[in-house]
Amino acid sequence: MDNPVLVEVTRGPEVESRHRGAVAVVDADGATVLALGDVECRVFPRSAVKALQALPLVESGIAARFGLTDAEIALACASHSGEPEHAATAAAMLAKVGRDLSCLACGAHWPLGERAGRALARSGEGPSALHNNCSGKHAGFVCLACGLDEDPAGYVDPSHRVQEVVRAALEDLTGASHAEDRRGIDGCSIPTYAVPLPALAFAFAKFGTGAHLSRGCAAAAQRIRGAVARHPFMVAGPDRFDTRVAESLGERAFVKVGAEGVYCAALPALGYGIALKIDDGGTRAAEVAMASLIRRTLPLDGEGLRLVETLAAPVLRNWNRIEVGAIRPTEALA
Amino acid sequence: MDNPVLVEVTRGPEVESRHRGAVAVVDADGATVLALGDVECRVFPRSAVKALQALPLVESGIAARFGLTDAEIALACASHSGEPEHAATAAAMLAKVGRDLSCLACGAHWPLGERAGRALARSGEGPSALHNNCSGKHAGFVCLACGLDEDPAGYVDPSHRVQEVVRAALEDLTGASHAEDRRGIDGCSIPTYAVPLPALAFAFAKFGTGAHLSRGCAAAAQRIRGAVARHPFMVAGPDRFDTRVAESLGERAFVKVGAEGVYCAALPALGYGIALKIDDGGTRAAEVAMASLIRRTLPLDGEGLRLVETLAAPVLRNWNRIEVGAIRPTEALA
Repeated sequence: MDNPVLVEVTRGPEVESRHRGAVAVVDADGATVLALGDVECRVFPRSAVKALQALPLVESGIAARFGLTDAEIALACASHSGEPEHAATAAAMLAKVGRDLSCLACGAHWPLGERAGRALARSGEGPSALHNNCSGKHAGFVCLACGLDEDPAGYVDPSHRVQEVVRAALEDLTGASHAEDRRGIDGCSIPTYAVPLPALAFAFAKFGTGAHLSRGCAAAAQRIRGAVARHPFMVAGPDRFDTRVAESLGERAFVKVGAEGVYCAALPALGYGIALKIDDGGTRAAEVAMASLIRRTLPLDGEGLRLVETLAAPVLRNWNRIEVGAIRPTEALA
Repeated sequence: MDNPVLVEVTRGPEVESRHRGAVAVVDADGATVLALGDVECRVFPRSAVKALQALPLVESGIAARFGLTDAEIALACASHSGEPEHAATAAAMLAKVGRDLSCLACGAHWPLGERAGRALARSGEGPSALHNNCSGKHAGFVCLACGLDEDPAGYVDPSHRVQEVVRAALEDLTGASHAEDRRGIDGCSIPTYAVPLPALAFAFAKFGTGAHLSRGCAAAAQRIRGAVARHPFMVAGPDRFDTRVAESLGERAFVKVGAEGVYCAALPALGYGIALKIDDGGTRAAEVAMASLIRRTLPLDGEGLRLVETLAAPVLRNWNRIEVGAIRPTEALA
């Protein structure tokens, strides 16, 4: 099945590029609200499920036992820009369990945020694993290991207790198999499991509402959503989509990007979960598709509406700030 | 018409992302050698035609009159990485016509090359228009204006003599309309005109062979191809596709990337021109498609064959250098 074109990129009078993809919107009872394209095709959620991967840390009481703050919980769900506050917060999480960055197995990379990267270069320093956009998730895994009285060493291995616990949470929320034959290795070296979009959307409907979750898991989900809403900077960074949505919409929308064109969201008031994948992996299109879906489903006004409309139809400007085109949703999303 | 999937991105056992596109391969008589997808759809060639845009500068004798070197001619065809040599060479071109970077209308941006950008940040400097990946093309336009006894001011405007001359060269080589209703504004502020892929491919077949060109234009094309082959670093930069191909294959293949998933090439020994566009604008897929087409058509052995095979099937590694997947051409390109 050919997925529909969801997003177009224009230049002057022409459509210059086209992004296809699939979308699933599911309510808290698991009923399909919207399905576009081949939604049964399995998709690696990548970083879009970091908030779900953080559930065991909170639900177990380990986050509370070590005194993790809201900012630290938000960072555990983040694909952050590598700003100094992000790196410092990851380091603080590790310090709370008596560890340091030598425990992190995510690898080092220059900050995702270009300004943060240049500032780091200007300082004469290079990046450490704390600057890896996944360092908060990994610091959370180290905290989880310590709280479980497990040696954190090898925590990225599928057979480590940390990954067993996280995989069980993902299987529980998605209802989808997380078997070895659906497993890939993520950019930060943890396992990632390919699942159909409706299973991901259903997981986020549960995450946003607490429906079908144990009381403890529902409370953990609420804590995580609140933490991100109170610390939007921690979940991404300056000018980033997820940060801007959290700043503007607070707990009305939880959104999280994943690599390769994946986006997931929870819209608690509607009880909806959303999962989408752009076929070609294009983040610019995933952002426009997600903003369009929020605009289409969530009643908004004022500043929140303006932000979502801006994110759903970005204007493209060149190096001289001349308007050269736009990114826009197609009829399929309208 | 739905374009075929040309390139797949795998992760573990799954295909994670898919890139569709169209390809035209045309011989020096304009006959179709290969057509995949909707080749009649118009495409902005963007930077893929910089070598054609440099033809008037060379053919007119203006490059020779001002003593432009092969390295400078290669830079005029470049989407360079913003390394110090690139910026210095653009400045040298301007100095030869008694101008400086204040003439450049391309806008400033941080170097495309990440290492070059960090080195510039580390030096405490910021980028100038000389670091813009198009600064060589723009310096060439300033030289062309001066050689035509025109004021360079406004040389990016479609009505400036420089753009008239360049547009006439493009219309002549492609045989396609460059009318106002097909005009967009490029990233560097010059006009770009959407044309069908076979017209672009035919232009590169002519550029690679001299067929159907005046003696002066054929000689200019030969000078430009030779300049890039002798100065591969100038046309792109460290580890870049176009530089690696020029280093390895020399004058056997002229390749040039354009923004938004466009690639053009000339294979002089075969008389072929190639033009392709990835629907979604993905450069990673355009590179794999171009390498696959070269491997498929051009007889190669030894180091050249190894390079093209490597470029046609990149291995994807994560931040810990663990192999997580691959990019590969589909059957459509095989």
